[in-house]
Amino acid sequence: MRLVPVLLATAIAAAFPSTPMAHAAGSPQAGSVPQAAPAPLVSVAETRITDASMAIAAQLRETALASSLAWDITESLTTEVGPRLAGSEADARAVEWAKAKFAELGFDRVWTEPVTFPKWVRRAERAEVLGASAQPLAVTALGGSPAGVLEAEVVRFADLAALEAAPADSLAGKIAFVDYRMERARDGSGYGPGSRVRSRGPSAAIRAGASGFLMRSAGTDSHRNPHTGITRFDEGLEPVPAAALSVPDADLLTRLLERGPVRVRLALDCGWDGEYTSQNVIGEVTGASRADEVVLIGGHLDSWDLGTGAVDDAAGIGITMSAAVHIASLPERPARSIRVVAFANEEQGLHGGNAYAAAHGADVARHQLVAESDFGAGHIYGFNTGAPAHAKAAEARIAEALAPLGIQPLDQGGPGPDVIAIANVGATWACLGQDGTDYFDLHHTPDDTLDKIDPAALAQNAAAYAVFAYLAADAEGDFGSAPVEGP
Amino acid sequence: MRLVPVLLATAIAAAFPSTPMAHAAGSPQAGSVPQAAPAPLVSVAETRITDASMAIAAQLRETALASSLAWDITESLTTEVGPRLAGSEADARAVEWAKAKFAELGFDRVWTEPVTFPKWVRRAERAEVLGASAQPLAVTALGGSPAGVLEAEVVRFADLAALEAAPADSLAGKIAFVDYRMERARDGSGYGPGSRVRSRGPSAAIRAGASGFLMRSAGTDSHRNPHTGITRFDEGLEPVPAAALSVPDADLLTRLLERGPVRVRLALDCGWDGEYTSQNVIGEVTGASRADEVVLIGGHLDSWDLGTGAVDDAAGIGITMSAAVHIASLPERPARSIRVVAFANEEQGLHGGNAYAAAHGADVARHQLVAESDFGAGHIYGFNTGAPAHAKAAEARIAEALAPLGIQPLDQGGPGPDVIAIANVGATWACLGQDGTDYFDLHHTPDDTLDKIDPAALAQNAAAYAVFAYLAADAEGDFGSAPVEGP
Repeated sequence: MRLVPVLLATAIAAAFPSTPMAHAAGSPQAGSVPQAAPAPLVSVAETRITDASMAIAAQLRETALASSLAWDITESLTTEVGPRLAGSEADARAVEWAKAKFAELGFDRVWTEPVTFPKWVRRAERAEVLGASAQPLAVTALGGSPAGVLEAEVVRFADLAALEAAPADSLAGKIAFVDYRMERARDGSGYGPGSRVRSRGPSAAIRAGASGFLMRSAGTDSHRNPHTGITRFDEGLEPVPAAALSVPDADLLTRLLERGPVRVRLALDCGWDGEYTSQNVIGEVTGASRADEVVLIGGHLDSWDLGTGAVDDAAGIGITMSAAVHIASLPERPARSIRVVAFANEEQGLHGGNAYAAAHGADVARHQLVAESDFGAGHIYGFNTGAPAHAKAAEARIAEALAPLGIQPLDQGGPGPDVIAIANVGATWACLGQDGTDYFDLHHTPDDTLDKIDPAALAQNAAAYAVFAYLAADAEGDFGSAPVEGP
Repeated sequence: MRLVPVLLATAIAAAFPSTPMAHAAGSPQAGSVPQAAPAPLVSVAETRITDASMAIAAQLRETALASSLAWDITESLTTEVGPRLAGSEADARAVEWAKAKFAELGFDRVWTEPVTFPKWVRRAERAEVLGASAQPLAVTALGGSPAGVLEAEVVRFADLAALEAAPADSLAGKIAFVDYRMERARDGSGYGPGSRVRSRGPSAAIRAGASGFLMRSAGTDSHRNPHTGITRFDEGLEPVPAAALSVPDADLLTRLLERGPVRVRLALDCGWDGEYTSQNVIGEVTGASRADEVVLIGGHLDSWDLGTGAVDDAAGIGITMSAAVHIASLPERPARSIRVVAFANEEQGLHGGNAYAAAHGADVARHQLVAESDFGAGHIYGFNTGAPAHAKAAEARIAEALAPLGIQPLDQGGPGPDVIAIANVGATWACLGQDGTDYFDLHHTPDDTLDKIDPAALAQNAAAYAVFAYLAADAEGDFGSAPVEGP
């Protein structure tokens, strides 16, 4: 009914240019999104958070901080299920795990909603330098890559723009290698240019005639662990094998290329293999008086297959499930329900988030606020929402309750990947900004394992989600969610 | 002629108890070795280092510190040859590389000496948890392991002693898993108990009836990179597949075992495959007046196959080759020759060092001092030798010349692995003790790559070796090397 959500959607689309799904996949922290709050066209009552709610939130904060529940859930998922590539046998086990965990934790309602997507399979991958300096290269196929075996000379490009400038057919029979080094940043902003190499590089390579594509991993570590992630091929192009080298291997290849021509053998056995139907698994803590309205929080249940998906995104599942449990354990429920969604297949195209929006878009106005935790388990340092003016005072009250956790109001942020679609149809997002300085050391690598999570930071995350979700659920008034006007 | 070397050899044997070769392999920093200096039975002239030599050494130190030559050599070996498992095709390329590099660097004499050893081959390795928590485990075969495929229940032991206490046949049809966590230490002393699990664990497992052996890697990192290394099987035992898990995978397996029985599939394709003859590659800078006497420095040319053998031990090659080049570039040569040995196959049993001692043991008295750099590329913090009393003043002069590099006299140390054998027959060792705090994060893993070396620390190492070797080569008098008396 208002223009705000349309502006918001436009801003989000700008943050993930041209191919929102491919770009958004892989857990980026959304970039700078303008506050979506021109004055409403009609007068709206100001949303309020009461002193009583604030007092309960303060108690909830301490309870959650002292609890190991987020850790226990994260430990359970990463240990008992392990890697859970969308569409794999472990995807089904993860769904069963989530249903059982919601039930065990005493959620009032637990249900699943189907999510259908093309299934991609990784079987084997190998690369090696040929010739006088013959040696293996640590490599992983990009999600979406076809299978293929090729031996070809490598042509290096310093960045994506250089590859995109290569003339048509100039790489005939060659492997294009983009050697762009992603930058480290607290807000993950280096991942924009880093992941663009992954999403656009293969198509650019094909347009220049290349038979294969290699990239320096979109990552900030220096370990022998390549970073996978979804890629895509533009319409009308014949896909070629596409893979990422670990950072030390990209260094090595660059040093060899400084000495002269280098031939590489790239052998990928992977590819699309039919369709699969997984499930969004949803647990709800029923509200006291407005049970059909929800604060939606969640993470994604799938992971890449190389690690055990600890920071991406068992942590998000543990943080949000535990936050809801802490709220459910209060003497009195907040007015609205807390809905925790364990989204299916985020990694390969936000399929779970899109399915959720398709199923619940008509009910968007009943979504008080929506937030996904999908940027690891680092300390939360900032809070923001896309709420309009009439809810800004309430947003400030939530920030006030979060301040003892070391959280400041942010002037940027946006919806997590799986709530982009529901935000696009009018749900107001909240953002609890995590410190992602080290996130891209681990992201999409074999090294994404439980030991990389700091239990204290995880508890701080759970406390922040509990406080935020409780106060939003108990607020008097809304945060501006409303169906988007058609064009 | 004196008893000193016998005492020394005894001390070294004590530092590598019961199976010196298997224990010493894999670049340990030798443990505490007593000063081998009872008063000589006959009066010996005190060894002197002149002020003129000290002045030249000071200049040499600054030249070496400012040089990138050690880095350039290390970069060349790790880049152009890469991994160089003893007996592999890359072993032969490494030998050719070393010959060419010595020649290119202007060494006066370059030659090779044959080193024959059994050849071990790694073809493929894989492990996975079976059943409800099915997932892959990051694993690597221990060097010397036979091939084999087994599916069996895992039995965990907290340490080697616990496994050794297991009754005979108590592990029939099981996989023994030793979960000992190695400790981090500047002098690498945690590697003693860590590597003992690797060398003795498989035999202990077999004695208890096990069909396979797994261990938490002997390492101090938390990355998804298992640490390989040589193992051995006691006489009369039928070898079983033996492998190391990465640290996060050992954590995972332990967490799963806390929940109940765990079955694992272990599939190793590897094993002994005939004999191979490699070469010790030796380059010499001829001394001015006593050219047939040598200061021996060196590193080992082979590496494990998982990484590119940067800290283990391209660094040792780069440090010692460059040190000799800096000495050769002086206006005047020191009295004695500088002999740099690139030892063959250290990793699988000190084969190169043993072959050197067999070939040169009769000339032991012509070895002024012997030192190997095989503990990475960390800052050198200490200096010591096994010299007798008449050379202690000269040792102190060398320490004085090293002091501006931040190097202090040490009261422990011993010969590097490949000079143990020549020290055992009477050569006096020198030890330039490196900071190995981070060494076992990388040691024998895929992560042992060039980027892990700090160029400034590498140059400090080269400067220290240049100063030490020059002063020892130019000393008036000896450091006590003499043939060991027979029993």
